[in-house]
Amino acid sequence: MTTKTPYAVLLLSGGLDSATALAIAKDEGFICHALTVDYGQRHCAELAAAQRIAQALEVAEHRIVRVDLGQIGGSALTDNNIKVPEQPSAGIPVTYVPARNTLMLALALGWAEVLQAKVISIGVNVLDYSGYPDCRPEFIKAFENLAMLATKAGVEGNKFHIHTPLLYLTKAEIIQRGTRLGLDYGMTVSCYQADDNGLACGCCDACRLRIQGFLAAGIQDPTKYVISRTVTTQ
Amino acid sequence: MTTKTPYAVLLLSGGLDSATALAIAKDEGFICHALTVDYGQRHCAELAAAQRIAQALEVAEHRIVRVDLGQIGGSALTDNNIKVPEQPSAGIPVTYVPARNTLMLALALGWAEVLQAKVISIGVNVLDYSGYPDCRPEFIKAFENLAMLATKAGVEGNKFHIHTPLLYLTKAEIIQRGTRLGLDYGMTVSCYQADDNGLACGCCDACRLRIQGFLAAGIQDPTKYVISRTVTTQ
Repeated sequence: MTTKTPYAVLLLSGGLDSATALAIAKDEGFICHALTVDYGQRHCAELAAAQRIAQALEVAEHRIVRVDLGQIGGSALTDNNIKVPEQPSAGIPVTYVPARNTLMLALALGWAEVLQAKVISIGVNVLDYSGYPDCRPEFIKAFENLAMLATKAGVEGNKFHIHTPLLYLTKAEIIQRGTRLGLDYGMTVSCYQADDNGLACGCCDACRLRIQGFLAAGIQDPTKYVISRTVTTQ
Repeated sequence: MTTKTPYAVLLLSGGLDSATALAIAKDEGFICHALTVDYGQRHCAELAAAQRIAQALEVAEHRIVRVDLGQIGGSALTDNNIKVPEQPSAGIPVTYVPARNTLMLALALGWAEVLQAKVISIGVNVLDYSGYPDCRPEFIKAFENLAMLATKAGVEGNKFHIHTPLLYLTKAEIIQRGTRLGLDYGMTVSCYQADDNGLACGCCDACRLRIQGFLAAGIQDPTKYVISRTVTTQ
């Protein structure tokens, strides 16, 4: 596939997963167009990280599209009145952003169609994740089906492939894979509530998964945390 | 369904179709939350029309979400370097906006989930339309399937229904239906390139379909056009 249509649109959040997905796509020979969606996250450290990663990995182009999801709310990530949980919770947590991956894939699909790219890469995974429904393989399959029906490219007989290289990897395996590819995880920001200097809280779901991932991978965690803390694996 | 979950999110563009879909949803007893997507259209007359319609039809709430599709381009509606055609063309025209309805339905889905609404209304139709792939019934079905898999509400066993009351109506039938419901089409703007005063060009695809629709419906067209012109049905 890469020799036929080497262009890919990559959703790049600035976090550990999407940076690894980008490193993998580059390694697989794709010409990478990175798309970051500024949806009104709680902090701008993640967007700054996306810009650093896009530059370091020498993407063909990096675009940031602003969507004001604050108008819709309903998540701790888009509504400052909802607190980010600092303890694990049962079920789908309040950091779930309603329809976020549908929206981000829709934007990626639009750009892919303009670029005549047939591949969209997204760093979702179903093992060490927060239980978000729009990270599951059945969601990805349904979006591929939709993409074919939604677009002029689809009507003309083209199919879009949603590239999910992390789907069945643990967080430790993701970190090991990226490290082998030379990715500097010090550039990435996973924390849901990083401060203005990009320091991570060390307490939120995203920090917990990241900390445990580095421990399990046996790789030193380059993340700078606001507070020193003792971390144990679950 | 209306007695059980009367909330609906309605995509309201400011055009003839979505205004009619809103009038129908109100008539069917839904409590209507109107969502307008400001995606960087060529003109702001459509957005002003959406505000007028939302107010006149007394929706429960009207929100406008801005998404900068100019970053993605690829359409005469989002890239001022691509001219709006003033003659009919074969195939899918350059006014097609890549993945637009997927994006708009994703935003509506997010808001519907926050509101605990199970119905999303969109004024697509497959008869008198411009051939856009994301107006077809198979696209709508695929989005319903996706919505169930994409959301926390779906995981909890809820289904979303995409309400498409205009799907199989001709433009004339749409206009007759809205007129019976007391809708004032003078509030709506269909033109792709209306001027700052909301005057329609009378030449673009959207204007042509609208003009022919009023003629076929036998209802006087309240639209104000930039130029006087003689119109004949096809």
